[in-house]
Amino acid sequence: MRMRRIKWAVEYLPTSSSLIKEPEQLKGKWKEFLQTDRLHLEIGCGKGGYSAAMASLYPEEGFIALEYNDSAAGVAAKKFDEIKGHKPVLLWKNAAYVTDWFGENEVDVIHLNFSDPWPKHRTAKRRLSSPRFLEQYKSILAPNGEVQMKTDNEDLFAYSLLAFQDAGFRMDDVTLNFRKEPHDEDPMTEYEAKFVAQGHPIYRCVWKRNK
Amino acid sequence: MRMRRIKWAVEYLPTSSSLIKEPEQLKGKWKEFLQTDRLHLEIGCGKGGYSAAMASLYPEEGFIALEYNDSAAGVAAKKFDEIKGHKPVLLWKNAAYVTDWFGENEVDVIHLNFSDPWPKHRTAKRRLSSPRFLEQYKSILAPNGEVQMKTDNEDLFAYSLLAFQDAGFRMDDVTLNFRKEPHDEDPMTEYEAKFVAQGHPIYRCVWKRNK
Ligand SMILES: C[S@@+](CC[C@H](N)C(=O)[O-])C[C@H]1O[C@@H](n2cnc3c(N)ncnc32)[C@H](O)[C@@H]1O
Ligand SMILES: C[S@@+](CC[C@H](N)C(=O)[O-])C[C@H]1O[C@@H](n2cnc3c(N)ncnc32)[C@H](O)[C@@H]1O
Repeated sequence: MRMRRIKWAVEYLPTSSSLIKEPEQLKGKWKEFLQTDRLHLEIGCGKGGYSAAMASLYPEEGFIALEYNDSAAGVAAKKFDEIKGHKPVLLWKNAAYVTDWFGENEVDVIHLNFSDPWPKHRTAKRRLSSPRFLEQYKSILAPNGEVQMKTDNEDLFAYSLLAFQDAGFRMDDVTLNFRKEPHDEDPMTEYEAKFVAQGHPIYRCVWKRNK
Repeated sequence: MRMRRIKWAVEYLPTSSSLIKEPEQLKGKWKEFLQTDRLHLEIGCGKGGYSAAMASLYPEEGFIALEYNDSAAGVAAKKFDEIKGHKPVLLWKNAAYVTDWFGENEVDVIHLNFSDPWPKHRTAKRRLSSPRFLEQYKSILAPNGEVQMKTDNEDLFAYSLLAFQDAGFRMDDVTLNFRKEPHDEDPMTEYEAKFVAQGHPIYRCVWKRNK
């Protein structure tokens, strides 16, 4: 899952007008800042296609895309900067510290798309659906907030079903072949388009924070 | 899912020594009757291969296979009658009345293998993982009892994940490709062997009754 270094993107990133450099200053104030009453946070946005497409589909809602890899974040930054209409903002940060930038109950929807599976037991705690992350998501999610996960990875999906349950989330919707039916309301991510083209099923689950 | 009528099996069924004709008389007494302290109930056993193989693998445990279709039950009956060693008993019954034959806390493991998916909304209540069935399973399961489900059907599996959660069961184990690894502890059913040969993934989940 190590990404090839993209020199132009790494250099572009700090110059981007979509990049929020000091997100801790907006903690608790994102809805005001983005002028919305519904806030989405995509964690591990990669090249940003999903948040970009979501922002265009839902112009009334606010989108924050978070990514720690500088090459991926740089590509996302360029993509966002070039959008004419409603666009996401970008955080170039490690999700492990998400409570530093978001207040309690602040986020309505967290998106986890094709998160790195970290298959080895030794690195399981880097999974974005591991217990330490889930505790942070609970804290920043609104009372009826939700986490939406999509993945092609059967082991990560099975792991996540148990991890969310054990963290006290309630499964609200689950499907083992999300792209069998059309879903115009939910754009494909870069990874997703590849897996779908290969005929791989897409697993998806939505969990609600349990009050 | 309508099975072809198997004349010899239908005629054989009532003559089988494995068939328990009045299971209500054994309610609350199955462990004594089968001389075991661990009781398995397979619901919708079809031709009986799974319970037969389980009985041979676990000679100390008791196996009851339930099936309402007379052709399938007849084939299972013949199979069980021909076993020399430890074998299952058979109930030719509709699972909708399972609390008529099993007492509270009596069953340790319920097996649902490749249950009919009943995909139409109109017939959803016939699914063996629909709420009315789950309430009955809770009542006959031992406090730390469990339900083990295997299926090839993604919609039935997704439906069941939600239904068991909503009935208050706790997911204990889940896998989206059970046969990717060898599982000598768990025999394949007749349906399973076919799906595995076609390369279809097998979904499996184990739920614990929540105390
Ligand atoms: C497999 S990629 C998927 C990218 C995109 N979501 C898609 O579906 O095309 C996973 C992304 O998550 C990012 N990521 C993983 N852990 C992260 C963390 N702790 N904080 C921020 N980003 C993370 C990785 O750098 C990578 O870009
Ligand atoms: C698709 S077959 C699977 C058979 C077997 N478990 C296997 O895996 O090979 C499902 C079986 O469940 C039985 N069944 C469905 N609903 C039932 C019910 N309410 N009571 C008893 N048996 C039922 C059907 O008659 C059928 O034989």
